[in-house]
Amino acid sequence: MGRVGHVTDSAPAADVPAPLDLTSDLITLTRQLCDVPSPSGHETALADLVEGALRAQPHLEVLRDGDAIVARTSLGAASRVVIAGHIDTVPVADNLPTRVVGEGSRAEIWGRGTVDMKGGVAVQLALAAALDAPARDITWVFYDHEEVDASLSGLGRIARNHPDWLAGEFAILCEPTAAGLEGGCNGTLRVEVRVPGVAAHSARSWTGINAIHGAAEVLRRLEAYVPASVEVDGLVYREGLNAVTIRGGVATNVVPDSCAVTVNYRFAPSTSLEQAEAHVRELFDGYEVVVVDGAAGARPGLDDPTAAGFAAAVLAVTGGAPAPKYGWTDVARFSALGIPAVNFGPGDPVLAHKADERCPVGDLTACYDALREWLTA
Amino acid sequence: MGRVGHVTDSAPAADVPAPLDLTSDLITLTRQLCDVPSPSGHETALADLVEGALRAQPHLEVLRDGDAIVARTSLGAASRVVIAGHIDTVPVADNLPTRVVGEGSRAEIWGRGTVDMKGGVAVQLALAAALDAPARDITWVFYDHEEVDASLSGLGRIARNHPDWLAGEFAILCEPTAAGLEGGCNGTLRVEVRVPGVAAHSARSWTGINAIHGAAEVLRRLEAYVPASVEVDGLVYREGLNAVTIRGGVATNVVPDSCAVTVNYRFAPSTSLEQAEAHVRELFDGYEVVVVDGAAGARPGLDDPTAAGFAAAVLAVTGGAPAPKYGWTDVARFSALGIPAVNFGPGDPVLAHKADERCPVGDLTACYDALREWLTA
Repeated sequence: MGRVGHVTDSAPAADVPAPLDLTSDLITLTRQLCDVPSPSGHETALADLVEGALRAQPHLEVLRDGDAIVARTSLGAASRVVIAGHIDTVPVADNLPTRVVGEGSRAEIWGRGTVDMKGGVAVQLALAAALDAPARDITWVFYDHEEVDASLSGLGRIARNHPDWLAGEFAILCEPTAAGLEGGCNGTLRVEVRVPGVAAHSARSWTGINAIHGAAEVLRRLEAYVPASVEVDGLVYREGLNAVTIRGGVATNVVPDSCAVTVNYRFAPSTSLEQAEAHVRELFDGYEVVVVDGAAGARPGLDDPTAAGFAAAVLAVTGGAPAPKYGWTDVARFSALGIPAVNFGPGDPVLAHKADERCPVGDLTACYDALREWLTA
Repeated sequence: MGRVGHVTDSAPAADVPAPLDLTSDLITLTRQLCDVPSPSGHETALADLVEGALRAQPHLEVLRDGDAIVARTSLGAASRVVIAGHIDTVPVADNLPTRVVGEGSRAEIWGRGTVDMKGGVAVQLALAAALDAPARDITWVFYDHEEVDASLSGLGRIARNHPDWLAGEFAILCEPTAAGLEGGCNGTLRVEVRVPGVAAHSARSWTGINAIHGAAEVLRRLEAYVPASVEVDGLVYREGLNAVTIRGGVATNVVPDSCAVTVNYRFAPSTSLEQAEAHVRELFDGYEVVVVDGAAGARPGLDDPTAAGFAAAVLAVTGGAPAPKYGWTDVARFSALGIPAVNFGPGDPVLAHKADERCPVGDLTACYDALREWLTA
């Protein structure tokens, strides 16, 4: 279909995004990244932009695996830090293109991805371009498929295909922490607790055994459970044990012969996945317990000298104290590779995935300044 | 598409069922009725056969509304009895055409509909043809849509469109009772008990309120409930209160903000629907209770002189004692019209809707004999 009327300039069609200018201010860069939607599985257009902008930097070697991009300095420094972020988001909720509300340091950028986590990616990209001679070597990682099934993770794929790309003494994941330092993460385990019964017509219910009634005891144990708070390497991790779904019954005139409760256990990083499973099996003793999925947490690792140095540098800029990360994040993947890792990025994690997702501009500059300070010191 | 080759006889194609011969033996008639599948909503072919066979009887006036057929004598007798049965079935479960297993009085007819309730319809049709001069006037009713939502019921439609077609002093519903006399029926009420919560990410579950955990108390009350047994007009009705479905939770990383338990209360016919609802609301005091559907039961009505006379006549042939009907049946519709009604038909109701549905030939003859005896006495 042709365009009708005079075409008065040669601007590209609106659906071909402009190249990224990594010298832009952080607001412009964050908005550019967000305004190219990249829900999981649809990252290619944005990955192409990121790759193109990084290849324009002569001090970086650029590598690519699928829609994951790695760019690294090779200065022969005594140590190397890995700074990683994902470029995918959860589906857009009618909250793009981005808009800026407020002015100056109180301004906020609204829209999908501003918090989780293209604000962090903008900080990464700006620093990747600006720091052509950092005090330590840096590997910048931008990866796909973080917001979906863990088996699809671009970071996991790099770890399998090119483990050398992730080599380093310390890792920083720019997931949202409201520009605070969050160490490690809780582990997560999902199990299905199954309660059997015997089907019968509900008009003659005494000939059956009601599986839903039988689930009363499972729910009672969940309700009575008091989750622990566990100190690990100086941070206190708050646990949680919750029924997340319950399903029972097939028809409204049948005594149900099965009821299944899916339980999600979020456990401190000092507990192994095996220990977590044993704990849940003990709690639901007497019932069939089937593991659905699980992933160990990550210790905060702040006793590591590099991590401690980073923490001190960050806190000198941002104030506050290190805190535990409750949600499971990819720091656990670094932890599994033997690399201490922390979460540090702009945006309030509570706003992630929400329709009113928005990132304070002050968080962007705080993260940029703190990272720049430490990377060049 | 034309048939290829010689056509050597003029038999109708296999999908055009042969007319019903109401002078056939009960086995043949039951099998003919069953071998024309008529799941609810697909009764027309069978209704046409029934109508045709009845119109061939000069002593009957035949009426039709949709796929419901009514045939009645008009002898000016002192009383009129309504004898009713439905011609639809639940879906066929690979159990047609019918087959006969065993011989003589121990033979059984296997297949969909033999119990619920084409065995009963065969008895009705055979008697409708045979009794051209009964001692009381008879209205034979054959109706559609019994096995689906009550609002579709062919009997309900007749009651709305032509209440005069159902006039009578007493009604017999030929639903399966294993040739025993089952009086009245329990009522049924379905409610949804709703438990609210506050959604949260399961990694920060302490910021939410888990609705599934909150349902523990609802299930505890159900589990602790002791259903009553209630004597009504000399029969003991056993009640039941059961969760039939439970649903809660939308995603495996979210603390659920709602959980709903559908509860089915089967209550004695001495309890009104309003009383049943009040009982359930009291039991789940503190929770939102929403009525889904309900229908009052029917008292056995065996204190009615006609019913008592019928009971005596039947029991003289079949032996045993009257029993309560637990499942809700259309006797409740007659009861609501002010007509005492009982269930009396061939086949074990426990086998209804099952893949191994089968009706003893002895039940067919017992029901035929007992009805004939009483109708001609």
